[in-house]
Amino acid sequence: MSQNFLTFSFLFFLLLSSPNHSYAQKHTKKHAKNPRIPCKTMVFYFHDVLYNGKNSKNATSAIVGAPAWANTTIIAGQSHFGDLIIFDDPITITNDFHSDPIGRAQGFYVYDKKDVFTAWLGFSFVFNSTQNKGSLNFAGADPLMNKTRDISIIGGTGDFFMARGIATLMTDAFEGDVYFRLRVDIKLFECW
Amino acid sequence: MSQNFLTFSFLFFLLLSSPNHSYAQKHTKKHAKNPRIPCKTMVFYFHDVLYNGKNSKNATSAIVGAPAWANTTIIAGQSHFGDLIIFDDPITITNDFHSDPIGRAQGFYVYDKKDVFTAWLGFSFVFNSTQNKGSLNFAGADPLMNKTRDISIIGGTGDFFMARGIATLMTDAFEGDVYFRLRVDIKLFECW
Amino acid sequence: MSQNFLTFSFLFFLLLSSPNHSYAQKHTKKHAKNPRIPCKTMVFYFHDVLYNGKNSKNATSAIVGAPAWANTTIIAGQSHFGDLIIFDDPITITNDFHSDPIGRAQGFYVYDKKDVFTAWLGFSFVFNSTQNKGSLNFAGADPLMNKTRDISIIGGTGDFFMARGIATLMTDAFEGDVYFRLRVDIKLFECW
Repeated sequence: MSQNFLTFSFLFFLLLSSPNHSYAQKHTKKHAKNPRIPCKTMVFYFHDVLYNGKNSKNATSAIVGAPAWANTTIIAGQSHFGDLIIFDDPITITNDFHSDPIGRAQGFYVYDKKDVFTAWLGFSFVFNSTQNKGSLNFAGADPLMNKTRDISIIGGTGDFFMARGIATLMTDAFEGDVYFRLRVDIKLFECW
Repeated sequence: MSQNFLTFSFLFFLLLSSPNHSYAQKHTKKHAKNPRIPCKTMVFYFHDVLYNGKNSKNATSAIVGAPAWANTTIIAGQSHFGDLIIFDDPITITNDFHSDPIGRAQGFYVYDKKDVFTAWLGFSFVFNSTQNKGSLNFAGADPLMNKTRDISIIGGTGDFFMARGIATLMTDAFEGDVYFRLRVDIKLFECW
Repeated sequence: MSQNFLTFSFLFFLLLSSPNHSYAQKHTKKHAKNPRIPCKTMVFYFHDVLYNGKNSKNATSAIVGAPAWANTTIIAGQSHFGDLIIFDDPITITNDFHSDPIGRAQGFYVYDKKDVFTAWLGFSFVFNSTQNKGSLNFAGADPLMNKTRDISIIGGTGDFFMARGIATLMTDAFEGDVYFRLRVDIKLFECW
């Protein structure tokens, strides 16, 4: 085998493999050293005002499903087990309910445990600001008595094309059964 | 260092790296040049006939949750806010409702905004044709007054094993509150 | 071209490519040979006891949405079409309902087809045992008259950080409309 052939083979191999590498670099560009370091982090708050029969003007959410022993005006006993709530909540950058929303958190949650407040969430962050257009989609269990809870970011569109990650939820404030504010720490581990 | 050793090293390196490459090629085979070019595209239509108290024979969907001020027979006011609909809709290749379905779109949507028609969708395309067996799973926000809306394809099974991507929804037709037809442009960016 | 230069080029190339490889190895470490071989498999059972008006003490799930022709105490006719059920079901390692649960399956399912029992599921496995902490999130169609059905594992947290995969469901037992036990074969194809 001559040196020339070896050199040629080597360069040919380089050529062949480069498209894959360039893909890998684009797809996972910020992950080279440690895949558990996020490629993007963001913090938001969202605010839920539950309809209770008296606040139809201000309410951002409503009970639309309830078990046989409850109804859709008054939140159910037994840790609200069986209540299904639909929401369209403002997202803000600070914890100030009156600050300008940069998007809406839209979707649903269900209370799914009898003996402790626990929910399951399916929703989107729909961004509509000068900084961000697009959406992030979330799903997961929310054992809301825990200080922090992790759910999955299962996809994204627009500025968040094909994103995946983890969102850490924290209850930042609540007032009885009518108002709660969640802090959401978004950590994306797949950025395209 | 002899040529033989160098040749050996080179081949050994090829050998070592080939499993990763073959994996990369299988996993991302059509992405080499630009990760934003889909590895698979498909266009389908699906048809939703909502139960309204009179069409139980033809209806493919029904309201099963509603807010306190509405009911499950008549779709709610305020942009249908709070209505939860379950559906089993035929999927067709053309926009002809009477063409042979190649599968079913199955799942739910909620209307989640008071002042403009907006929904949140969780559903599957369940394919059952000679061309495709398997399913694609979808989730995301659908601001349905926009001409096009992007939701996430969060997984797949069978022929669409582990797929991820984006689905662009377009309202292709509607008749009052009873019928709508969605065009769905599927773009997969992860093909296994 | 001298041998030394060739050797240098070769080592330089090795050096250049190593960060990507180390990432690839971490991200997909068990996938080298065939991406369709799971990086992790687990088998669990979960047990659903549906509230029927008489079993409020033992019930782990309840109907919370129903179509206009049905109610939330008695499961609907027409293959339960339109019923929405919320659940908090024990997960066990064996099929014994009375064995110690290692976590809870929490979320919802809807019956979405009139002429054959078919459901759509969105739920989490929330693990809380010495062996596993964390959660797996699931979504997909469940044509439950089929012996096996595949749904998507769309994300995970804790020990299952960023996981993706397929879950194969099998109905292991059922008693009328009150009890069913599902066997879940979990196959993860993305392990971080």
